[in-house]
Amino acid sequence: MQNLPEFTEITPTADISSGAYGARSKCLQRLIRLDMPVPLSVALPFIEVRAIASGHRPDTRALLEAFGKYPLISVRPSAETADWGGPGTILNIGMNAATTAHLAATIGKEPAEKLYRRFVQSFSVEVARLDAEAFPPGQSLEGALAAYEAEMDEPFPDDPAIQLLEVLRSMARAWEGTTARLLRQAKGAPAEAGLGLVVQRMALGLGQGECGSGVIQFIDQATGAQQIKGRYKSQAQGREALTADAGALYLTRDPRGESLEERCPELFAELLAHGARGRIGLREEMQIEFTVEDGALRILDAVRVPRSARAGVRVAVDLANDGVIPREEALMRVEPQALGELLHPQVDPEGERDVFATGIAASPGAAMGRIVFSAHAAQACAAQGEACVLVRHETSPEDIRGMHAARGVLTERGGVTSHAAVIARGLGVPCVVGASGLAISSRERTMTTADGRVFREGDIISIDGSRGEALAGAAAMLPATLDDGFATFMTWAEEFSDLGVRANADTPQDAETSLRFHADGIGLCRTEHMFFEDDRLTVMREMIFADDAEDRRAALERLLPMQREDLLALFEIMEGKPVCIRLFDPPLHEFLPQNREGVRQLAEAMDLSVSRVNQRIEALREFNPMLGMRGVRLGITVPEIYDMQARAIFEATVEAGRRGAPIEPEIMIPLVSAKREVELVKGRIDSVAAAVRAESGVDFGYQIGVIVETPRAALRAGEIADHVDFMSFGTNDLTQMTYGLSRDDAGRFMGTYVQSGVYPEDPFHILDIEGVGELLLIAAERARGSKRGLTLSICGEHGGNAESIAFCRTAGMDYVSCSPFRVPGARLAAAQLVISEAPERQKATLSQWIARRLRLRQGDRPNEV
Amino acid sequence: MQNLPEFTEITPTADISSGAYGARSKCLQRLIRLDMPVPLSVALPFIEVRAIASGHRPDTRALLEAFGKYPLISVRPSAETADWGGPGTILNIGMNAATTAHLAATIGKEPAEKLYRRFVQSFSVEVARLDAEAFPPGQSLEGALAAYEAEMDEPFPDDPAIQLLEVLRSMARAWEGTTARLLRQAKGAPAEAGLGLVVQRMALGLGQGECGSGVIQFIDQATGAQQIKGRYKSQAQGREALTADAGALYLTRDPRGESLEERCPELFAELLAHGARGRIGLREEMQIEFTVEDGALRILDAVRVPRSARAGVRVAVDLANDGVIPREEALMRVEPQALGELLHPQVDPEGERDVFATGIAASPGAAMGRIVFSAHAAQACAAQGEACVLVRHETSPEDIRGMHAARGVLTERGGVTSHAAVIARGLGVPCVVGASGLAISSRERTMTTADGRVFREGDIISIDGSRGEALAGAAAMLPATLDDGFATFMTWAEEFSDLGVRANADTPQDAETSLRFHADGIGLCRTEHMFFEDDRLTVMREMIFADDAEDRRAALERLLPMQREDLLALFEIMEGKPVCIRLFDPPLHEFLPQNREGVRQLAEAMDLSVSRVNQRIEALREFNPMLGMRGVRLGITVPEIYDMQARAIFEATVEAGRRGAPIEPEIMIPLVSAKREVELVKGRIDSVAAAVRAESGVDFGYQIGVIVETPRAALRAGEIADHVDFMSFGTNDLTQMTYGLSRDDAGRFMGTYVQSGVYPEDPFHILDIEGVGELLLIAAERARGSKRGLTLSICGEHGGNAESIAFCRTAGMDYVSCSPFRVPGARLAAAQLVISEAPERQKATLSQWIARRLRLRQGDRPNEV
Repeated sequence: MQNLPEFTEITPTADISSGAYGARSKCLQRLIRLDMPVPLSVALPFIEVRAIASGHRPDTRALLEAFGKYPLISVRPSAETADWGGPGTILNIGMNAATTAHLAATIGKEPAEKLYRRFVQSFSVEVARLDAEAFPPGQSLEGALAAYEAEMDEPFPDDPAIQLLEVLRSMARAWEGTTARLLRQAKGAPAEAGLGLVVQRMALGLGQGECGSGVIQFIDQATGAQQIKGRYKSQAQGREALTADAGALYLTRDPRGESLEERCPELFAELLAHGARGRIGLREEMQIEFTVEDGALRILDAVRVPRSARAGVRVAVDLANDGVIPREEALMRVEPQALGELLHPQVDPEGERDVFATGIAASPGAAMGRIVFSAHAAQACAAQGEACVLVRHETSPEDIRGMHAARGVLTERGGVTSHAAVIARGLGVPCVVGASGLAISSRERTMTTADGRVFREGDIISIDGSRGEALAGAAAMLPATLDDGFATFMTWAEEFSDLGVRANADTPQDAETSLRFHADGIGLCRTEHMFFEDDRLTVMREMIFADDAEDRRAALERLLPMQREDLLALFEIMEGKPVCIRLFDPPLHEFLPQNREGVRQLAEAMDLSVSRVNQRIEALREFNPMLGMRGVRLGITVPEIYDMQARAIFEATVEAGRRGAPIEPEIMIPLVSAKREVELVKGRIDSVAAAVRAESGVDFGYQIGVIVETPRAALRAGEIADHVDFMSFGTNDLTQMTYGLSRDDAGRFMGTYVQSGVYPEDPFHILDIEGVGELLLIAAERARGSKRGLTLSICGEHGGNAESIAFCRTAGMDYVSCSPFRVPGARLAAAQLVISEAPERQKATLSQWIARRLRLRQGDRPNEV
Repeated sequence: MQNLPEFTEITPTADISSGAYGARSKCLQRLIRLDMPVPLSVALPFIEVRAIASGHRPDTRALLEAFGKYPLISVRPSAETADWGGPGTILNIGMNAATTAHLAATIGKEPAEKLYRRFVQSFSVEVARLDAEAFPPGQSLEGALAAYEAEMDEPFPDDPAIQLLEVLRSMARAWEGTTARLLRQAKGAPAEAGLGLVVQRMALGLGQGECGSGVIQFIDQATGAQQIKGRYKSQAQGREALTADAGALYLTRDPRGESLEERCPELFAELLAHGARGRIGLREEMQIEFTVEDGALRILDAVRVPRSARAGVRVAVDLANDGVIPREEALMRVEPQALGELLHPQVDPEGERDVFATGIAASPGAAMGRIVFSAHAAQACAAQGEACVLVRHETSPEDIRGMHAARGVLTERGGVTSHAAVIARGLGVPCVVGASGLAISSRERTMTTADGRVFREGDIISIDGSRGEALAGAAAMLPATLDDGFATFMTWAEEFSDLGVRANADTPQDAETSLRFHADGIGLCRTEHMFFEDDRLTVMREMIFADDAEDRRAALERLLPMQREDLLALFEIMEGKPVCIRLFDPPLHEFLPQNREGVRQLAEAMDLSVSRVNQRIEALREFNPMLGMRGVRLGITVPEIYDMQARAIFEATVEAGRRGAPIEPEIMIPLVSAKREVELVKGRIDSVAAAVRAESGVDFGYQIGVIVETPRAALRAGEIADHVDFMSFGTNDLTQMTYGLSRDDAGRFMGTYVQSGVYPEDPFHILDIEGVGELLLIAAERARGSKRGLTLSICGEHGGNAESIAFCRTAGMDYVSCSPFRVPGARLAAAQLVISEAPERQKATLSQWIARRLRLRQGDRPNEV
């Protein structure tokens, strides 16, 4: 042992830090400093607890001296961060025959013996690890003592010092257990995280006069709205008021029954005053555990109110609005990833629920779609704009793209930290795991419930990821409740953030979602999705089967009005916000059927022989479609496609202007690897623009850019920049080509690779800064060197990842673009980056900072950090 | 017209350059300077001829003044480079009734009229463009004149000035024709290439005393051996001695008939003296056209002897050995690409030839193999080490990989500049095009000859690319005649070159070829080819179908001795020269059958159900195999494979040492994208090495390196270099990934792309210096920055391309590695680079340079440039 105190009484001036004694000890000290009536508390530091776990026997007799002749105490865990958990609290340590007799004088024999019995039971089960069945409810004190002795071959320890010693040793060892370790590491605790302990005098809540205990908080933990919640129970200990409802009092006046406010108005007022002081002093919404001893209030403990993501945002906003914390801190208090949770719709709790399976609520929100049994089917579905729910035994890394494509995920196996659960939360996809009653056959594409209901691929189901339920059919949904708190919060994030955030949005629905989530515009609109719908697919296929440019053009002319209307709808929704449209990108074979039946149908529809259709499919087949005839290569080889798209964009632009939604469209050329590609396509687009201007008599502006997806485009960014107005980095494809790694095929070894540290992270999830990132930096530098002020951005999944966003900001990107549901998180991440740099910056402008904080307290909005 | 001479008499001091007057005019001036008896010659410069083509009428009357009262002249073309061709020579201009009468006095009436008639005929057909059928052989003079008048509605021009004018105009215009333009551009002429003309007094070769004409050269044009060749004919003009064999004389004494040497010994001696002077003065082996006028020798013209590649090398070596040119120049005189031609075997001219089709000899050499009808089939064949001949209607860019994989190419259509012909020559693959009697059905996989013979896929045929013949079965072959000239030439190239050249060689046969072609070692030995042979394929498939690591290891243990023996054979052949072995690279699915019948057979062989086999195939299927589970990814995920290979390499190393061929093998890890991959594989290889050392009691060295194929490996070369001894750039794959371009799929648009200048060249053919090249430079700099002296090289098709080699040298590569047949060309290209830099360098060491040239003349070998 080092020369450190084994334990420290918690006083206003004691040297107690959460880094040495844990968050609970520190919090108790703060309560004491706020003059709250906290019973005598002694804190054990991490170092002491660690020593105990290793066999050190602390001097509990000395510790108990402070607690008088009949010590009666509780021991609570105190980890560095409350979230990291710890062993359960143990109450009533010190009970033995003598103390029972002593207590009987004041609270009566029966209650005193009851306390003793309960201590024997909890000590036996939680400290001595005896079987709980040996201590049934209703057991007598003597029975409990006898059961202990029968199991342990020795009498129940009478000496409070020994009792305490055993409790401390048990709690210290429990912290070192594998399960506890894994659980806290899952919450981000480091391997060496320590545990502190708090030994506190029991405030009994039993006895003469008004005695009891209760719990109070000042917000609704689901919504964050200010509301006093909790219960109180006379003649009760700990959290009995919450668990044993019978006889519990409401806190505030309530038509349903008696309240503490009515029974003890002064005491209640005192409690409220402590609560208000605690909120300001601890700068947080706290849940307070209190006890009343013969009419006197005792504050035993206070913890941060556990809350939903929505409530978290609301509380942060309210605390800032009340001047308790600055706005910066409000923004820092919400995890960017958590924002996803509150954006999803929920199953309407009032609606009918045909629940066919229940499991673990692994990723919140509700989703509805057709059942698919494979990642590929999910992608195929999504490619055609069809909502689907991925149903799997369990998921593996190969399923990630499918999970991303699906609206919801349902698995038969797995827990809250299973692959499916972790990934689904990351993606913001509602997910239920471990729905163990289900029998899933991927081969037969059926899912059978415990009671024999059979669901097939294509059937519609709903997922309630917040409740952990799977429902048949399309359950009634409530849109996400984006309350004022969210709106205010996002406004603040926008004010602090210095990086634009746009959404990847292909459909009017996506566009509407983007706006609701405060996107600055659309950073990636994939036009080809518009051709997968049934009526268009047929025309698309006619185009593919056209024998010459003339026939091709005829088919494309039929697609033109459809594309124009789609874009017009988007432009109108976006109301002048920028829209960046990527020209046709995928290889043509994606539009042809993949199986025999599809070929037969297509042959019939086109009035062609099956062999002719097969011949065309064969001719378009590619060894490596990712590296094949797609993007600008198609645009140059079959220029009619881009001509049609450019015309659709410009005609929609003209019409949007007429309808009062003027827009300057941004046109993005995909898969560029040489500047000449850009010159050629730009030349044709400019001609189409001139033609549409002449035909319509309307002038309009537009921008042309490229999506940098090949390493060569990154290297040649300098000369490409000469021809374009903007550049967006398609980090998904750029990652594929830089690593020589197909995202579709990487699943088979990505798990092994990340586990064995070959790759520190899945580079499709977190941007590879060393490789892909360097190409991005080279490109940005060359592009800006060649054209100052060129707009740079990234689009792709990395755009929604906080770590990758930090890199993009450093690289000087103007904006990131990600899926709509990740927009708020991306915005918040960007704001947090600015804020976390603030202290540095503010050294120079301290007075400004102080002035702004003063304004903040007066309710003014800060204009800058 | 600018103020330039319209024409210039060729005298020793006239200002005649080949850049203004063409190579023939310049050559004639040189002959005159060498005191050869050249008849009066006048040269017209390019600028004059171009003006004539545009309508300018030159003053031919003034030109003819120099040629006397009865001018009798020839006009010959004189392009800047003799290779670029030009219109045919026209003789006897000036013949008319008066000249005929004048000549009749000296040579007799009949010969004079014959001359006149021949001139009328050639003027009519070649200048007036009349139908040749109107001027049949045996036609009388009067008949010819009448035929001209009948066709032209005017009498045959009598005035020599008008005759000459028309000849000049005709020749000038012919040069501007599209066909002539295309033909010369195919030979590298620029668009603006000019034509000069030479007007020369006719030396008649007819008349009294010894008169006649002949052609002489001093080498055999097939082998380059020194040998007097040519014919002479009395009373003949021009090249009649060669075409009209009857009555022609041999030049030297010959048992078959009379010779010039015997008939006119002094004249013959004079001719030899001129020849010897010409060889030294013109520093080249010339073919001399001469005429004898009444016993007096006239030298009319001399051209470089057209020669085979083999003769070209021999001549260059002989000229240098004779001190006529320095060795540097000898090396500069051979095109690196032409070397490929002399490396191929030839069909034995003495052997039986079952010729089933004849066509155009498009790319020399002979090949034998099984018929395949598609590029894919060719690749599949080659992947299994099976020789094949690609048979196509005609080839397109999509066939390039197939052409590369095939040993020979046969097409039904196309000429000498068709795609197939150009590409085949580039690749050094023997090729016959335009075998038009064939009926090829790619679908039915048959080829039917004009007389009904049917060949099917898999049948063996032979290609004689030097004769333009396709032969049934395996024709008898003669290995390439690598004479002393070649060996000397390659030795010189090695001395001058400062870049190593290794061969990509997988088989003992390849290794032997490499050595014959003076490779420094093997730069890329692909080990997977060893697993495609029948007995191994079965074991390989057992490995793939193994259920666990144990079964996998058992299968691999059976492959171990096979791999070891293969490598041992290679090591023994290479006799200590370095061998760089690439560990297993392709995805496993390449080893599984592609069609239903193959699956059925495999199921039978493995005693598995067809559905189980299909299941495995499905499980291994990849969207983008190029970017999938292959190379080091397989090595890390299924480490048993590399373990086996490392053991095979080391055991072969030990055994090779025992057999007196000690080697330090170089082991190359493919598809690396992160340094950790290298660490992991290196760790296992080191363990295997330690185990083999312990088991065998033999110590051995080895090197470990990576093949840089992903852009990321290039960017991270600095940290990867820490773990390796060498780095080789796999420019094929690096190009694919840098461009995002699959070589297998690029064919569909590469033609359009190169034609429209999107890419200046096919980047798979010529290294893309701007993109891929920059990555290569970055990697080289970082790798050497991290580990000075690290061995760097490139392997891949670019290694055999002269332009790419220049870049590799600049980038500081230690060696390039290419296919064995491209090794000599690569070596020569490297030597030429050194030599072409020499003048720069030698300014500083002029005395050294002179001393070296002196030594050279004395037959010493230079040690350095």
